[in-house]
Amino acid sequence: MVSTDPADLEDHGFSVNDYHPGAMHSVVVFPGSTEDVVQIVKVARKFKMPIIPYSGGTSLEGHTRGHETGGICVDLSRMDRILQINEADSDLICQPGVRWADINSTLKEKGIPLFLPLDPAPGATIGGMISTGCSGTNAVRYGTAKAEWFLNVTVVLPSGEVIKTRRRARKSSTGFDTTKLFIGAEGTLGIVSEATIRLAPLLPTTVAVVQFPTVRHATEAVREVMNKGVGIQCVELCDDVFMQATNKFGMSLRKWPEKDSLFFKFQGHSQESLQETARVVKSVVEKHGGTGFELARNEQEAEDLWADRKNAHYSGIALLEGSKGWPTDVCVPVSKLPELVYETKKDLAESGILSTIVGHVGDGNFHALLLFRTDEELEAARHAVHRMVKRAIALDGTCTGEHGVGIGKKEYLVEELGDGTVELMKTIKRTLDPLNLFNPGKLYPDEPRPKGRNQ
Amino acid sequence: MVSTDPADLEDHGFSVNDYHPGAMHSVVVFPGSTEDVVQIVKVARKFKMPIIPYSGGTSLEGHTRGHETGGICVDLSRMDRILQINEADSDLICQPGVRWADINSTLKEKGIPLFLPLDPAPGATIGGMISTGCSGTNAVRYGTAKAEWFLNVTVVLPSGEVIKTRRRARKSSTGFDTTKLFIGAEGTLGIVSEATIRLAPLLPTTVAVVQFPTVRHATEAVREVMNKGVGIQCVELCDDVFMQATNKFGMSLRKWPEKDSLFFKFQGHSQESLQETARVVKSVVEKHGGTGFELARNEQEAEDLWADRKNAHYSGIALLEGSKGWPTDVCVPVSKLPELVYETKKDLAESGILSTIVGHVGDGNFHALLLFRTDEELEAARHAVHRMVKRAIALDGTCTGEHGVGIGKKEYLVEELGDGTVELMKTIKRTLDPLNLFNPGKLYPDEPRPKGRNQ
Repeated sequence: MVSTDPADLEDHGFSVNDYHPGAMHSVVVFPGSTEDVVQIVKVARKFKMPIIPYSGGTSLEGHTRGHETGGICVDLSRMDRILQINEADSDLICQPGVRWADINSTLKEKGIPLFLPLDPAPGATIGGMISTGCSGTNAVRYGTAKAEWFLNVTVVLPSGEVIKTRRRARKSSTGFDTTKLFIGAEGTLGIVSEATIRLAPLLPTTVAVVQFPTVRHATEAVREVMNKGVGIQCVELCDDVFMQATNKFGMSLRKWPEKDSLFFKFQGHSQESLQETARVVKSVVEKHGGTGFELARNEQEAEDLWADRKNAHYSGIALLEGSKGWPTDVCVPVSKLPELVYETKKDLAESGILSTIVGHVGDGNFHALLLFRTDEELEAARHAVHRMVKRAIALDGTCTGEHGVGIGKKEYLVEELGDGTVELMKTIKRTLDPLNLFNPGKLYPDEPRPKGRNQ
Repeated sequence: MVSTDPADLEDHGFSVNDYHPGAMHSVVVFPGSTEDVVQIVKVARKFKMPIIPYSGGTSLEGHTRGHETGGICVDLSRMDRILQINEADSDLICQPGVRWADINSTLKEKGIPLFLPLDPAPGATIGGMISTGCSGTNAVRYGTAKAEWFLNVTVVLPSGEVIKTRRRARKSSTGFDTTKLFIGAEGTLGIVSEATIRLAPLLPTTVAVVQFPTVRHATEAVREVMNKGVGIQCVELCDDVFMQATNKFGMSLRKWPEKDSLFFKFQGHSQESLQETARVVKSVVEKHGGTGFELARNEQEAEDLWADRKNAHYSGIALLEGSKGWPTDVCVPVSKLPELVYETKKDLAESGILSTIVGHVGDGNFHALLLFRTDEELEAARHAVHRMVKRAIALDGTCTGEHGVGIGKKEYLVEELGDGTVELMKTIKRTLDPLNLFNPGKLYPDEPRPKGRNQ
């Protein structure tokens, strides 16, 4: 299946989620199998055309933007099947176009009490999740895509060759794990056409919310809670502006105190163990100045409370009528988070930019949604993001905790990782894709450098 | 510091733990800093001499064996300092020569309730643990070295260049994670000279032991236990022969039923939660035919019970007077474990080889210790290991779950991973180490292949 319909080209090459520069794709193709992908790669090689993989279209840094010379957008949405569920091994095999949310609802429908804990945007698909090195709210308990959820991947390399990186055993010590080469590579080293995914036991959960005088109080409470060893599946920091936005948005059943707040999701093997976790957490957070600790009394209340956290994007936008939002994320060592949030909020206030902040606080990762209405305000937001990234890197952190590099963050890689590490990445890229056809212009910094530095 | 003392050369080039072929090193050097390592690499490049890194010396597959052309063994044992402990961030920075056991005892002495959960042989050091892609008994709870315990590594590349792969944030989505290139690379892509390690909260634990009619009963019990979501830190399968060996060894305070047994280590935030876990586990294992469930009544009893598991090597050897043991490990999808153990035990019995089996059953990984006294018996053991590996690979498993490839397993890589994946590994090796100086003859299969298959 092939399309040159301008609407398809527009839809695949641009995103309502980001404001990075870019061009249109020449064509969008919809492979149905690994073999189809191989054929597309062969055509691309023949005509030296860039290949830009596309799956869920939820990325935020221009990952699927078209290339200035034109190119082939490979939309993997037709490859959306779960091929095998191995309940006894807690794993499954699937194609790259399947959504994590659909994997979890399929497991639920089948009555299999397992789930994939990686939870980026609900529309995100396995191919993009691998390629972005995603994570989400569950990462504080389960780690990220770079942990051990992907047991193997089948990849079409830039050469057109198909490899499967590993077998299905949970562990293997057979050299460095080539699966990891493709996690976070943003489609620049190959196109993932199949994956074997490890699943986790699905456990009872509940939700609690608590307010704090400052982000520092909240962060210190989180540190102590995490060291207790009770069942924490998620712990999310929502700043005072976020809570104000939630009130203004009006979808919440509550009127929240407009203070820096923590949203906890507890997990346990029984209702009793959830109650015990709640008891321990309440005592720790109150020691750190937490007030208004509210524990869901039933499943419905838990869902309602969590919805207020999950509505982040829409409630954020609601804060300023007629605005759009620039979403971004950075990540620092956990102890540096209060400083980073404090300085960022001060900067935003001084720049007259409204923004909510919501953080995966257990990992030192936070998202900001910078609101703007005019081109001038968009430029101000762009500059504020730039300063936020610089601040995060200066605190031994990263320009992106989970959104990836794409176009939007590539200028920061040398400062963050150093010349040598970036050159190592580029050396591997050049080795695997000497024609530079796979998602060119993304991930790797632009400046020309002498070849062969790592050799 | 440099040594050409034959005792040093022998000590660094050969191992009492394995029976693989190899040659003597030309010289052993003892760098004290990253800069020293750089100087050694420069010398090696000048004289085109192989470099073989060495740290704990506990590897089992000939990883530190000398090269036939002679070479420089780089002993990192002087670089054994913990450089920085960031308690508030649950991480630390250290040199490659420090033992994980020393990291954990240092944290304990300082009263910092954190630990590194990777637990291979007690003498193993960080450099070797990274390079082997290690794990151990805690992996069922915490994952392996290939998960997210190593936040970054500083590496001296074959070019002599020093890179640091990442900063100290727990998460980063800045492209594929180059840290992972060096985890499991067995020193073939660079020498790790510093690492930042994430730590886990240290929690109360206790131990329980239970016997089963067969390995299949035990494995199915483990599967159900793991899905309960109670606090399991370790679950180890010790077969009937292992328990017989433990009785014969005579260091146990108990006389064990000589049946396939599970050793559990529970973890929880309180004594009550440990008791609750024990109650849940007891009920599940008894449903699966488990008998004699014994829970440690105090810390001393827990230590005593666990010691019987930990004495595996010595109790195994005790089974046959005057014997040595060939240790090996394989790993399969968990549901395949009973079949693999059954077939392997049948094969060993038919071959007249005594062996204990002890498995990280939650991960489908097991170790066998094949006993022999004569050269003929050694050859028989070698062939039995070969058949065990073939069996594991046929069950969608791996030739090594945690010991690594070294010399002993490299012949299996093509069958297990496929031509294309092995060629990808070799392509990266050739790109980073075009002179093939870094631990040559290890990890990558020997057969010559045409260059540039992945290009």
